[in-house]
Amino acid sequence: MSLDAVLSRIDDDLPQALERLMDFLRIPSVSTDMAYKADVDRAAEWLRADLESIGVTAEKRPTRGHPMVVGRGGGSGPEILFYGHYDVQPVDPLHLWHRDPFDPAIEETPQGKVIRGRGASDDKGQLMTFVEACRAWKAVTGRLPANLVFLFEGEEESGSPSLVPFLEENREELSCSLALICDTGMFGRDTPAITTMLRGMTTEEVEITGPDKDLHSGGFGGAAINPIRVLARIIASLHDETGRVTLPGFYDGVPELSQELRDQWQGLGFDPDAFLGSVGLSRPAGEQGYSALEQLWSRPTCEVNGIWGGYQGEGFKTVLPSKAHAKVSFRLVGEQDPEAVRAAFRARVEEMLPEDCSAAFHAHGGSPASVMATDHPAFEAARQALSDEWPREAAFIGAGGSIPIAGYFKTILGMDSMLIGFGREDNQIHSPNEKYDMDSFHKGIRSWARVLARLDEMGGA
Amino acid sequence: MSLDAVLSRIDDDLPQALERLMDFLRIPSVSTDMAYKADVDRAAEWLRADLESIGVTAEKRPTRGHPMVVGRGGGSGPEILFYGHYDVQPVDPLHLWHRDPFDPAIEETPQGKVIRGRGASDDKGQLMTFVEACRAWKAVTGRLPANLVFLFEGEEESGSPSLVPFLEENREELSCSLALICDTGMFGRDTPAITTMLRGMTTEEVEITGPDKDLHSGGFGGAAINPIRVLARIIASLHDETGRVTLPGFYDGVPELSQELRDQWQGLGFDPDAFLGSVGLSRPAGEQGYSALEQLWSRPTCEVNGIWGGYQGEGFKTVLPSKAHAKVSFRLVGEQDPEAVRAAFRARVEEMLPEDCSAAFHAHGGSPASVMATDHPAFEAARQALSDEWPREAAFIGAGGSIPIAGYFKTILGMDSMLIGFGREDNQIHSPNEKYDMDSFHKGIRSWARVLARLDEMGGA
Repeated sequence: MSLDAVLSRIDDDLPQALERLMDFLRIPSVSTDMAYKADVDRAAEWLRADLESIGVTAEKRPTRGHPMVVGRGGGSGPEILFYGHYDVQPVDPLHLWHRDPFDPAIEETPQGKVIRGRGASDDKGQLMTFVEACRAWKAVTGRLPANLVFLFEGEEESGSPSLVPFLEENREELSCSLALICDTGMFGRDTPAITTMLRGMTTEEVEITGPDKDLHSGGFGGAAINPIRVLARIIASLHDETGRVTLPGFYDGVPELSQELRDQWQGLGFDPDAFLGSVGLSRPAGEQGYSALEQLWSRPTCEVNGIWGGYQGEGFKTVLPSKAHAKVSFRLVGEQDPEAVRAAFRARVEEMLPEDCSAAFHAHGGSPASVMATDHPAFEAARQALSDEWPREAAFIGAGGSIPIAGYFKTILGMDSMLIGFGREDNQIHSPNEKYDMDSFHKGIRSWARVLARLDEMGGA
Repeated sequence: MSLDAVLSRIDDDLPQALERLMDFLRIPSVSTDMAYKADVDRAAEWLRADLESIGVTAEKRPTRGHPMVVGRGGGSGPEILFYGHYDVQPVDPLHLWHRDPFDPAIEETPQGKVIRGRGASDDKGQLMTFVEACRAWKAVTGRLPANLVFLFEGEEESGSPSLVPFLEENREELSCSLALICDTGMFGRDTPAITTMLRGMTTEEVEITGPDKDLHSGGFGGAAINPIRVLARIIASLHDETGRVTLPGFYDGVPELSQELRDQWQGLGFDPDAFLGSVGLSRPAGEQGYSALEQLWSRPTCEVNGIWGGYQGEGFKTVLPSKAHAKVSFRLVGEQDPEAVRAAFRARVEEMLPEDCSAAFHAHGGSPASVMATDHPAFEAARQALSDEWPREAAFIGAGGSIPIAGYFKTILGMDSMLIGFGREDNQIHSPNEKYDMDSFHKGIRSWARVLARLDEMGGA
């Protein structure tokens, strides 16, 4: 087979590939909100049908939540699993979007053309780079590359509640020699990257109750405890003045970065001023003594992702509220135990509660960090393939976000994951005006064709 | 004239008086939310027409916000102004109401009949006790008592933005010998009260901005500052471990309670356990070293009335938000300066802001505390009239809530205010399921008839 012919085919078919992606983006598959349940299902069905159109035998498989799409196709040799997710983040605050998040468009920007819309990058655009590479391969060679298993999830943005049971129930069918995951980013504009360190995460919601009903702050203020004040004290206690998290045992299992990796990362030419400047900031806000890149890739965090209580509307309401709430998450590294971190947080809340208050907890999810086995030969092969497509050599990097699936693939299915993606830092995933660069999409498809060519030569890794 | 005949008329007319109140309560006159603007106007018109029906010459007078209703009627002698407000608090959280807040009903409860609905107590039910007393007086004697000016406001629950300009523009018309204000409560179930000390209030909203857009906490968490964390630290800094507010100069102008008043209040038989127990609490949460009653009536406070930032919906969103907000209020006593307190709060926020964050402030309102001149002869006359109606002697008491109007009447119109009301602590004003006891309404009307008889005899005070 000729890689050049596949790459030409990709170039020629780009307008049609974009039309397919636009169709996919128009489906508002917001998995966290049950109001969109039918739309999530419609996105699964769209993806199943698209896989069938390139010769993959694909099924929509029910779970207790949103369905999985599972497909199979290609030749012989060791199986390679490709994973992506077809659900997207909620879109609020909606008024900050420049256009309807589910009416995607190609826009011209000073940095070039972009695809604008919810999911354009995370993860519909990214997963379609792989599907389109397979489509071109099939068109040119008459067959799919390697021996592929496709697994697409619809609950990644809501903590993947059905994923572990599904992997456990289908262990035999889904255990492959290697997993490919397309949900990560480039390093800078021109350096393709294979992500080899992923932070884990513990997510938790807490509700503090003081009075058993909302009160008038005139009639009760001073004598009645205010749960917002209690919650604020708890949150303020979570970090010390140097930015370290104060929960006992929190740093158990956090490794210091090896000098080798620290040197590699310093060589990447990461510009913390430009990185923070892109979001209106100037100073790394994390633990003192660590570079911004270390704070993002190799250090754990504690963040408050949401807080609410009392009156939030127009004007002023002198309410002394009964309840205050927060959503709190911890990014984890190394061997940190997600459930030990959860327990330490809960213990802190209980310990700081005044006698008259109570706390209720809701666990949203927890997954350990992942560190990939880069000595698997597919890693170096893929690094070379990526380097052929892009201006700069591909690098092995870390990532601040959590992709728990990589951990589950290792622990449940016993396979390593290779994380390759074409996102950029300014894609505004999880924020208003999400976009995916046109060259991420186009060269992303070409990149997968190159990687698949190497894996096909290796007999499916 | 015969007071007994007026009281009989009140008893006979109670069913009709209730029907009128129900009509009034059905109008959702929520002044803080512009969506209800037409309803607020409708409530003003209803009240104007009702005043006309008892021989008061009444007008709806425009302001830059919601209208004032001003009326005039009765005989000669020094004028007495009656003030009330026809707007109501917002109703959220709506799901905690047992019924539609604007579909009021008479309900049987273990404590007797109650009128349930938003505004039943605060302030529609209360102001109608006075209007109904006048109606009965007119029906029996053919004239109104004393020489009355009516002033009804539609913005009390949203900080009264138009009140001061209106009083200033109509100083001559509205300056009377005394003001009567019906927006306060009984002391306990059986002790009527004239409120002589009212806390003032400073209300303030703050918005903290960190990153210039919402971020993904995976991509930026650790390196980017989280404004919720900044806000929590600021709020946590506002009180020390003994419950004192830590703003510099906050206690300037706060008087220690006189031994005389402290003794009087101790004689009231206030039961802090029952008071706090009624809302599910057991310990006074304010400044150590002060009784619960002192914390409520004679000590200043700082409360957070609302807080919000990040994701509050179903599930979990790993957002690192751009902004966090809080609505903060300070209850003031003695000579505390509302604007000095505001300035101290803003200075604290600015002082605690990390370099990369900014703060925006919105002043909602400010009014000093009021202490009434109880040596005016109308106070003792009214105390005796109230004692004639109720099981126990009437008392001079303090109040934790702010009724800024009393301060404005003194400073702008040069008149003292006599605050008489029939609310009870469990009325849940500003909360779901607001109610007004049937006997508050019925005996409240009778009380005003008795007070008006004394004032009429005194020649209008």
